[in-house]
Amino acid sequence: MTASAAAAPQRRGTELPEPVRVAELAALLGAELQGDGQQPVRRLAPLASADAESITFATGPRYAAQLAQSTAACVIIPPALQEAASHRPARLVTADPYACYARLTQWWAVQLRPRVQAGVHPSASVAEGVRLGEGVCIGAQAVVEAGAVIGAGAQIGPLCHVGAGVEVGEHTRLAPQVVLMPGTRVGARCLLHSGVVVGADGFGFAPGAEGWVKIEQLGGVWIGDDVEIGANTCIDRGALDDTVIDSGVKLDNLIQIAHNVQIGAHTAMAGCAAVAGSTRIGSRCTIGGAANIVGHLTIADGVHVSAASLVMSSLTRPGHYTGVYPLEEHADWERNAATLRRLHGLRERLRNLEKKTRP
Amino acid sequence: MTASAAAAPQRRGTELPEPVRVAELAALLGAELQGDGQQPVRRLAPLASADAESITFATGPRYAAQLAQSTAACVIIPPALQEAASHRPARLVTADPYACYARLTQWWAVQLRPRVQAGVHPSASVAEGVRLGEGVCIGAQAVVEAGAVIGAGAQIGPLCHVGAGVEVGEHTRLAPQVVLMPGTRVGARCLLHSGVVVGADGFGFAPGAEGWVKIEQLGGVWIGDDVEIGANTCIDRGALDDTVIDSGVKLDNLIQIAHNVQIGAHTAMAGCAAVAGSTRIGSRCTIGGAANIVGHLTIADGVHVSAASLVMSSLTRPGHYTGVYPLEEHADWERNAATLRRLHGLRERLRNLEKKTRP
Amino acid sequence: MTASAAAAPQRRGTELPEPVRVAELAALLGAELQGDGQQPVRRLAPLASADAESITFATGPRYAAQLAQSTAACVIIPPALQEAASHRPARLVTADPYACYARLTQWWAVQLRPRVQAGVHPSASVAEGVRLGEGVCIGAQAVVEAGAVIGAGAQIGPLCHVGAGVEVGEHTRLAPQVVLMPGTRVGARCLLHSGVVVGADGFGFAPGAEGWVKIEQLGGVWIGDDVEIGANTCIDRGALDDTVIDSGVKLDNLIQIAHNVQIGAHTAMAGCAAVAGSTRIGSRCTIGGAANIVGHLTIADGVHVSAASLVMSSLTRPGHYTGVYPLEEHADWERNAATLRRLHGLRERLRNLEKKTRP
Repeated sequence: MTASAAAAPQRRGTELPEPVRVAELAALLGAELQGDGQQPVRRLAPLASADAESITFATGPRYAAQLAQSTAACVIIPPALQEAASHRPARLVTADPYACYARLTQWWAVQLRPRVQAGVHPSASVAEGVRLGEGVCIGAQAVVEAGAVIGAGAQIGPLCHVGAGVEVGEHTRLAPQVVLMPGTRVGARCLLHSGVVVGADGFGFAPGAEGWVKIEQLGGVWIGDDVEIGANTCIDRGALDDTVIDSGVKLDNLIQIAHNVQIGAHTAMAGCAAVAGSTRIGSRCTIGGAANIVGHLTIADGVHVSAASLVMSSLTRPGHYTGVYPLEEHADWERNAATLRRLHGLRERLRNLEKKTRP
Repeated sequence: MTASAAAAPQRRGTELPEPVRVAELAALLGAELQGDGQQPVRRLAPLASADAESITFATGPRYAAQLAQSTAACVIIPPALQEAASHRPARLVTADPYACYARLTQWWAVQLRPRVQAGVHPSASVAEGVRLGEGVCIGAQAVVEAGAVIGAGAQIGPLCHVGAGVEVGEHTRLAPQVVLMPGTRVGARCLLHSGVVVGADGFGFAPGAEGWVKIEQLGGVWIGDDVEIGANTCIDRGALDDTVIDSGVKLDNLIQIAHNVQIGAHTAMAGCAAVAGSTRIGSRCTIGGAANIVGHLTIADGVHVSAASLVMSSLTRPGHYTGVYPLEEHADWERNAATLRRLHGLRERLRNLEKKTRP
Repeated sequence: MTASAAAAPQRRGTELPEPVRVAELAALLGAELQGDGQQPVRRLAPLASADAESITFATGPRYAAQLAQSTAACVIIPPALQEAASHRPARLVTADPYACYARLTQWWAVQLRPRVQAGVHPSASVAEGVRLGEGVCIGAQAVVEAGAVIGAGAQIGPLCHVGAGVEVGEHTRLAPQVVLMPGTRVGARCLLHSGVVVGADGFGFAPGAEGWVKIEQLGGVWIGDDVEIGANTCIDRGALDDTVIDSGVKLDNLIQIAHNVQIGAHTAMAGCAAVAGSTRIGSRCTIGGAANIVGHLTIADGVHVSAASLVMSSLTRPGHYTGVYPLEEHADWERNAATLRRLHGLRERLRNLEKKTRP
């Protein structure tokens, strides 16, 4: 066992102040209640650690054995697991337990999190003429520059910088230390995590006799509705036109989106991915962690790129694409990688042999 | 068509308050004017979307067809495209249209951007004894520690932290939320984007019986003139000597520069690249996005490393170097990658066959 | 010679206000003093640049030649280098010169760095009911939310955000602009560099008919003692349980740690590495720069992963693992990579040839 398994006395992060009856959750989630609707639950936990005060979930048959041993008060399950869960006091049966669990986390978060107070913190710097919608909250030490427009119910976290003329849509939330440079427009119900930088200059220079000549980046950034952007992710402003992040896009942490990139609706990108300048990515794509897409490409809708793969040319058909060197023990890698450097030569030798043995 | 193409009603980001006559731009740029010098232009746009109020540019023959269909008011072109552009009302002819366009963006930016007001924002924290040059601007909530020296015309953005004794050169600009730790020296006319961290500790630990022993990082960071550093890029302080970024270097976003690295003049690195400790990179190199260079290497002047490639040994000659696994459909990759793990064995088998068939 | 070598007039970053006698350092470090204990030293320098006022170190025989030419006042050496160092005025002999040097840097840092003043900067925003231990320092423009608990001697840097209820252990230091979101617990004697974001939401969404359904991240982050976290590194909060970083872990810059990851004690990860969700990494592992580990894996204690390698399956045995495409001149790469796409076919052809030539 590694030390880490024992080290952290897990906080009971999901504990409600008051338990909730399972029947109430069934109604809320539109799931079929089986067993005792009066069963109280107090915590939301993974299947492996859910106890007699917890509600949990199992998405399919591969969890049947684990489910059989569970002592959870209530489980969210698909119809196929009714048998395996029948020993639990209460069950919520639904066609899509994972989406049902997702909606339950949203209800749970509302119970646990302190309600945000509308208003401008006295330490914030808000310029004259900023337009603040109803119920807006501006956190401590935040800076909102002239001409910014903040939609109703939006939250600007502590230490954020909202540049001159920036538009932030209704109910959009900026975690602490987000930077929105001038020329940025963020839609409604977005969530931007700490350290996000939107609208820094794209990387544009012309070669000149004395060194690089700066190409000023005169475009902006257009972000749709319901977009989530992970911590320390960067989205550069366009050179002349805007960089575009369409509605429903989900970006993880430490992602780089270069100038004039367009990302289609509901595309999701995992952490440390990067997209170079002017590439257009379709909708409902998934881009794996640390994957890279070079510039000036077009990626079709419904493309899935594996983690750590490099996309070097346009992908015109949906599909699953991969390009990674398989991991090996180092000594094996040394031998194989050395041979790889001669691969073209090996192919020539093989061809020669084939000629020789041809009758 | 992907959703993204239609989603964003492009702002007219480059629209001047008043149109400008083409003759004025020709004089400014030192380009040869052809056609009507009195032609007004109002926007700067890419060739594909430039309209009858726009100036645009085309760098070479591959744009001839697109140029033939353009309705732009004015185009910046090389001599070879004079024929193809002759139907436009005005043309600016120059040997290097891309550099000419770059200089035009600089003029354009000056027209569009609000002039920065010199002075210290009342919410900033500026320690006693800080030396501020003429025309310095310190943004809201910024923190400037004791002994810092800020050159004339420099701009310290809102929420920046300038550590004790840090030197910032004349006309250097820090975007919001830049951190310069003590021991940092930044030259003149640099531009550091939001989230840049200069002078955090290099990653240095000695193995000890009880775990890692911290090696305090006592060096600093020396940054030359005309350097640009992209958002959320990190440049660590040296262990004993300084980390050095020479003049004219351009670093994109989310780059990692480890302790005691030296980067030669006018080298450019694209986003997410990383250089490990004590490596020296020559001048006028280009390092592709997400490329990695391991520690303690020497890279010659004029080396070009492709995106996502790993440099594992010193490169003593200029040239173009690549090391990436080519992208494939996943099923093909699975077959080929499995075979790659046996590549050395295949070579042995080939050798045996060659012996056998030798007469 | 590259321009960078000449560009930076190195500051004398390690110069003490007053020289120190070598005998004092020998006592402090528990090293055997040879030569003149009264020898003064003023700077701590690498072997290559140490002069007659400097102390330096050499870890083993490979430095013998360089040591022979050194003019350093004092060298820290292993017994095997006593001969080679005998011409220097003073020598400190120890079984582990690198760890001895590490401890010396710690003493040196104490001499050079200004003592931090305890107290809360007047520009900081500290909520009611925050518990501050003795000697705590809260920097300018910092924000500390309700219910936070800051241990004795801890330092919260300028412009940091410490969320509601966050716990920061004794003598832990946050550099400027660190964000700790609610649900974060940091142990004692940790060091978090600028731009670190702890406790942003993990990347969790369920697919739904209308797009992605947010899975609220209800867990937190548990960080042990003596952990160091590099600039702009992100550690996401858990979905239900906590993300766990065990004591003694060292993380470099720009690292991504996803939700519910567990990292065992004394594991070190170099810059730009990333670990996807729910992976457990053992103790005393080393993960190379830009290496990636996919989600839901288990990595044994004592595993070493090379830079830029992708770990795609669990590693149950300690060892050194690598998976990177070797760098080549671009033209060679083009030939070999094209052949790699047909590797499985080559293997088939080889097999056919072997059949043919079988007697």
